[in-house]
Parts: sequence; structure tokens; C-alpha cells
Amino acid sequence: MRVLGVDPGLTRCGVGVVEGTAGRPLRMVGVGVVRTPAEADTADRLVLIERGIEQWLDEHQPGFVAVERVFSQHNVRTVMGTAQASAVAMLCAARRGLPVALHTPSEVKAAVTGSGRADKAQVGAMVTRLLRLDAPPKPADAADALALAICHIWRAPAAGRLQQLAAAQRRTTAPVRLPKGTR
Amino acid sequence: MRVLGVDPGLTRCGVGVVEGTAGRPLRMVGVGVVRTPAEADTADRLVLIERGIEQWLDEHQPGFVAVERVFSQHNVRTVMGTAQASAVAMLCAARRGLPVALHTPSEVKAAVTGSGRADKAQVGAMVTRLLRLDAPPKPADAADALALAICHIWRAPAAGRLQQLAAAQRRTTAPVRLPKGTR
Repeated sequence: MRVLGVDPGLTRCGVGVVEGTAGRPLRMVGVGVVRTPAEADTADRLVLIERGIEQWLDEHQPGFVAVERVFSQHNVRTVMGTAQASAVAMLCAARRGLPVALHTPSEVKAAVTGSGRADKAQVGAMVTRLLRLDAPPKPADAADALALAICHIWRAPAAGRLQQLAAAQRRTTAPVRLPKGTR
Repeated sequence: MRVLGVDPGLTRCGVGVVEGTAGRPLRMVGVGVVRTPAEADTADRLVLIERGIEQWLDEHQPGFVAVERVFSQHNVRTVMGTAQASAVAMLCAARRGLPVALHTPSEVKAAVTGSGRADKAQVGAMVTRLLRLDAPPKPADAADALALAICHIWRAPAAGRLQQLAAAQRRTTAPVRLPKGTR
């Protein structure tokens, strides 16, 4: 099971690919950040994010994409940008027929550290340990993207397999079929 | 000057194309709604919105795209979907090198009716009159999309021409150049 985790953002979009199965050691396939210049138009920044995500999908061919679920209780401006960047990530994945899962920040923290209120440093330390890295990935967005991918592998292996089957079926029938109640 | 107005939404994305120049009678080129089923996954809905917007761009070849600016003071769930749909509209336009303008709802209402607090019926009535239609376009999202396009033609003819020049230059140099302080 190979998962691309995306921690969406207009300025820094964290991306991390993890391979593995629940209950077995995990392997980091790649980690990075898609950046866009703050002085650019939002529309152009979204194009750059699309290109970045497409490159990661092309290069690493994940079977699943896990994106952080955005809430609007935070800073207004930031949330809009985050929602827009997450839309591009979801679009890139769904366009290829890849199943997209959304996980909340507290689900990710709980899955990786055991506490939904863990701080960035704790998440980074656990990601480092779980993937047997030499040091925590920097910036935090990159570590968060790996944590999202790990969370996805651990939280829903059964649900993930069902989604994969549904996606495979969609690919053989039509580019995007919209199943009623099948997911 | 041919403008595609987009009133973004996940369930109903209003689209309207208007042609004209500030100070001259305007002409409606087309109006419609891109719909996606509420029971589908958000990611698949974004793919359908992308296809819908692409069809409108292909068919009507606008020189500008005007999208309603999303604020997060409204209902939390709705705002996320609106932000995501608007991201797809902006992405489709910018990917083609088309200039994208964002207008707030009150800017649009003020431009079309003279009052930033006009209601849906007033906006619909003025759109009907300005475009010499037989009846107000339905649903309201379609009328709002036309109002956005009208607003764009009237509000910023000079800015629009500058944007168009910048976009033409971008198309001849690179698919997306990120100018510093040029817009």
C-alpha cells in the first residue's frame, strides 16, 4: 500500500510518500514541499501546486492520496488558501481515479503519537522513529505529510482496500463514475 | 471583451458569458449551471466541476474569467465547498493563461444595481434588463454568474486590458510566469 500524504497550503504544501501495511514496518519513499511565491496571484499559485502534485503522482505512483481535512475555525485568510490548495490535491488524485481520504489533524496526531493533542515536535519525532530516518523531516509541513500517509495506512486498511477496488472498477468503466452510497 | 463569470459552488456552479465594453450595450453569449451530485465524494465533485468549466472555456473562449471572492464568515461547510469550487475555476483559467479577477458579492451587486445590499431578485431583474433577456436567468447562481461578468466589464476596463497584455506576454514566454508586482 503506497500512500501520498498532502498537508495542503498555498505557500508550502507538504508531500510525503509512505509504503507499507498496518502492523508491519513502514518505508518512506519520498518527502518534500511544493512551494509557491506569496507575491503571485492565487490562480497562478494553484497552477504551480497542480504541477507539483502531478509530478509527485507521476514519479511515485501512489495507490491512495490522503489529504488533511481543512476546518474553518482558524485564521480566515489561511483557511481559504488551505481549502483551495487541498481542492487542487483532491482534484489531481480523483482525476486519475485514485481514492482520496481526508483525515483531521487530531486523527493524524492520535494515529502517529497516541495523542490527538501532540505538538509538531512530537509528531516529527514519531515520524522519524516510525520511518527509521536520521532526523525529523523539515519543514514541519513535510513531516505532517508523512504523518498523514502513515495515519492512512494504519487507520483504514479495510476501508482502503474497498476504495481501491471501487477506484479500479471506475477506471475500467468510466474516468469518474459517481457511485451512490458505495463509499 | 468577453468574460466568463463563475459563481462557485459544489452543488451548483453558476456560469455566464457576457461580451461588451464599458459604456456600450452588453450581450449575453451563454448562461448555465455546472451541477454535481451531493452524494458524491468531494474529490469526484471537483473533477466534474473542472470538466464543466473546461467545456465552457472551450466553447466560448473568453478573454477573462471573473470569480466570486469567497469569505469565510458564512456557514462553515458551505464555505469550504465554495472555496474548493472557486479554486478549480481559478485553476482552469490560469492554466490557459487567462487573467482571473475576484469580485466580492457586494462589488457585484453595487456594479449591477447601484446598491451593495441588493437582494437576489434585484440582481436578477437588472441582469435581465442589461442583457435584454425575456426573463431573469434561473437558478439565481446563473444570474449571479452573469452579474459577475457584467461587473468585471464595467469595473476595471483599464485594469482588464493590462491583465490581458500581461497574460498574452505570459503565453508567448512561459505557460505560467509569476510576475512580481505587475498585477
